[in-house]
Amino acid sequence: MKLNIALLAGDGIGPEVIDQAVKVSNAIAKKFNHEINWKPALTGAAAIDAVGEPYPDETHEICANADAVLFGAIGHPRFDNDPSAKVRPEQGLLKMRQKLGLFANVRPTFTFPSLIDKSPLKRERIEGTDLIILRELTGGIYFGERGRKDGGDTAFDTMTYQRFEIQRLAKKGFEMAMKRSKKLCCVDKANVLESSRLWRETVQAMEKDYPEVEVSYEFVDAVAMRLVQWPKAYDVMITANLFGDILTDEASVISGSMGLMPSSSVGSKVSLYEPIHGSYPQAAGKDIANPLATVLSAAMLFEDMDLTEEAQAIRDVVNKSLAEGVVTEDLADGAKAYKTSEVGDWLAANI
Amino acid sequence: MKLNIALLAGDGIGPEVIDQAVKVSNAIAKKFNHEINWKPALTGAAAIDAVGEPYPDETHEICANADAVLFGAIGHPRFDNDPSAKVRPEQGLLKMRQKLGLFANVRPTFTFPSLIDKSPLKRERIEGTDLIILRELTGGIYFGERGRKDGGDTAFDTMTYQRFEIQRLAKKGFEMAMKRSKKLCCVDKANVLESSRLWRETVQAMEKDYPEVEVSYEFVDAVAMRLVQWPKAYDVMITANLFGDILTDEASVISGSMGLMPSSSVGSKVSLYEPIHGSYPQAAGKDIANPLATVLSAAMLFEDMDLTEEAQAIRDVVNKSLAEGVVTEDLADGAKAYKTSEVGDWLAANI
Ligand SMILES: CC(C)[C@H](C(=O)O)[C@@H](O)C(=O)O
Ligand SMILES: CC(C)[C@H](C(=O)O)[C@@H](O)C(=O)O
Repeated sequence: MKLNIALLAGDGIGPEVIDQAVKVSNAIAKKFNHEINWKPALTGAAAIDAVGEPYPDETHEICANADAVLFGAIGHPRFDNDPSAKVRPEQGLLKMRQKLGLFANVRPTFTFPSLIDKSPLKRERIEGTDLIILRELTGGIYFGERGRKDGGDTAFDTMTYQRFEIQRLAKKGFEMAMKRSKKLCCVDKANVLESSRLWRETVQAMEKDYPEVEVSYEFVDAVAMRLVQWPKAYDVMITANLFGDILTDEASVISGSMGLMPSSSVGSKVSLYEPIHGSYPQAAGKDIANPLATVLSAAMLFEDMDLTEEAQAIRDVVNKSLAEGVVTEDLADGAKAYKTSEVGDWLAANI
Repeated sequence: MKLNIALLAGDGIGPEVIDQAVKVSNAIAKKFNHEINWKPALTGAAAIDAVGEPYPDETHEICANADAVLFGAIGHPRFDNDPSAKVRPEQGLLKMRQKLGLFANVRPTFTFPSLIDKSPLKRERIEGTDLIILRELTGGIYFGERGRKDGGDTAFDTMTYQRFEIQRLAKKGFEMAMKRSKKLCCVDKANVLESSRLWRETVQAMEKDYPEVEVSYEFVDAVAMRLVQWPKAYDVMITANLFGDILTDEASVISGSMGLMPSSSVGSKVSLYEPIHGSYPQAAGKDIANPLATVLSAAMLFEDMDLTEEAQAIRDVVNKSLAEGVVTEDLADGAKAYKTSEVGDWLAANI
């Protein structure tokens, strides 16, 4: 197979972790006889510095014409505490999601047998967790009208949802549930928000098309509690953009490390694969960041291309590295810590 | 002292847990020579059934003229899955918060030595946790404009904040921080939301008035993760209504049980005291609900009236009941479970 993959390293530790995913993917390509054509492009603070724009048109062209996008991280602290900054790296991320039509962010949460005791949660609560949060990614309060009034003293943001936006996400959720344990949970705040009531109404109307799927409706505050209390109670969850942002980060606690959790964002044109961790600026350039989330994101990419064996080969080598302790300092626990690049080299060599 | 306390039992387990708090408060009044004049009033589904309104004017009069309000819980499942319901119990709660001007919800999170192993989180992560989330309660997306467009196919909610709303909450936060460990964390989503940028800007401008307080700014998604990872990293936190709703429920996991966590809502006229748990309809009428969160809310009430000894007496007797295993089934762990009313009787008798 010939694959054109847009490569967006981004900011902070992005370039370092992306490098390792490239090494591993190239090793897979070699072993399984594929040809990967990497197309690097600028995003985030790096793109602002270079061309004044966090998601330049040129980058969009490269992504829109690729078979898939592999993405590192975006964000730089010099913008975070400056409320007056006009251009922000995150705008690039949002623009990218919108222009590529990446309406569903798929974030699986699972545990690694060899790491289960690293979780802040007790073993018996999390062992066997296997859930997927489907976060709506191109709507809601991220993309509604916002601004200031009263000479700057009033600020507003609008959470807007259209029925079709909910339908296409819910459809994915129902389909995933059918392939798994046939349980779908719609997470909203329908006791307060009108947009949540539209979510509930829309999903309820779709239930009849999937008679085998057992659908539950829960409030986001209750889920924020239960998710860490009894994660095994959940299977497929669908939720709005902002709620998904919060809950997926929270869910990452279950596995014990954000450095392990991959994600995909699927859309109409092309899909994007990225670790759920951020740009982690404190670690940038130090060759210490954990590359596994990005490597596992590449596995999701292969899986979605129906290259199942290839995806499994990546997951296997990751498990092997964990079992053998070839890990970065966040997981080393007093034992020898490997560098980011060393972990990548080891994984590629062991494919 | 003579106290007029409005008594809003509400729905579900509300009446049962309120009864126990009344027993305990009366025992305190007797012991310390106070006179409590309880003024019962209707709210929630109970009020809808009786007078068609979840927060009737009569109830408001009683609350507005009381020295404090003791509140149980609101909510009934028959409204939850009916997106077309015109009157909802929760509207009563929101109306009450707004009309009484309860702009700050104070939710402490701490651990009980005798219950620490009930938490889903590991002991070493949580032991010694002592944080307070100050949730803005009369603004934000709970009270902004909302509605439908396009014949019902589009729904919207507006998150609006005015500078003074942020200032008065932040002021409380700074003052609390000064009395505690001088650390304040402002939780927002300033990398996306304009209203969050107004929060950050407003709090930043107040920093100079509290030079001793160390202020940090964190994104809500990151906090959702860190709060269960390292709760001891936090002390006083301030945040918007919706974020506070989610984070406070999540924080309740730390203590191991929602049934234990009290809260107060302070305002311009009168303050309100309530357990953070909901109406828990599955348990209603069964005399099994844990009354301690409501009893501890009464302790917060006495504390705010500067009746410090009285408040401490309540906390002491609660700790004693936990240590001696006089607890409801949620905490019994195989041992004998006491009824809600039995726990209340025991507490009152041991004051
Ligand atoms: C960086 C930020 C804008 C982004 C978001 O809120 O979506 C991030 O938190 C994420 O989850 O990908
Ligand atoms: C019942 C609901 C409207 C309410 C809220 O969202 O504020 C509840 O969750 C709470 O936290 O008191």
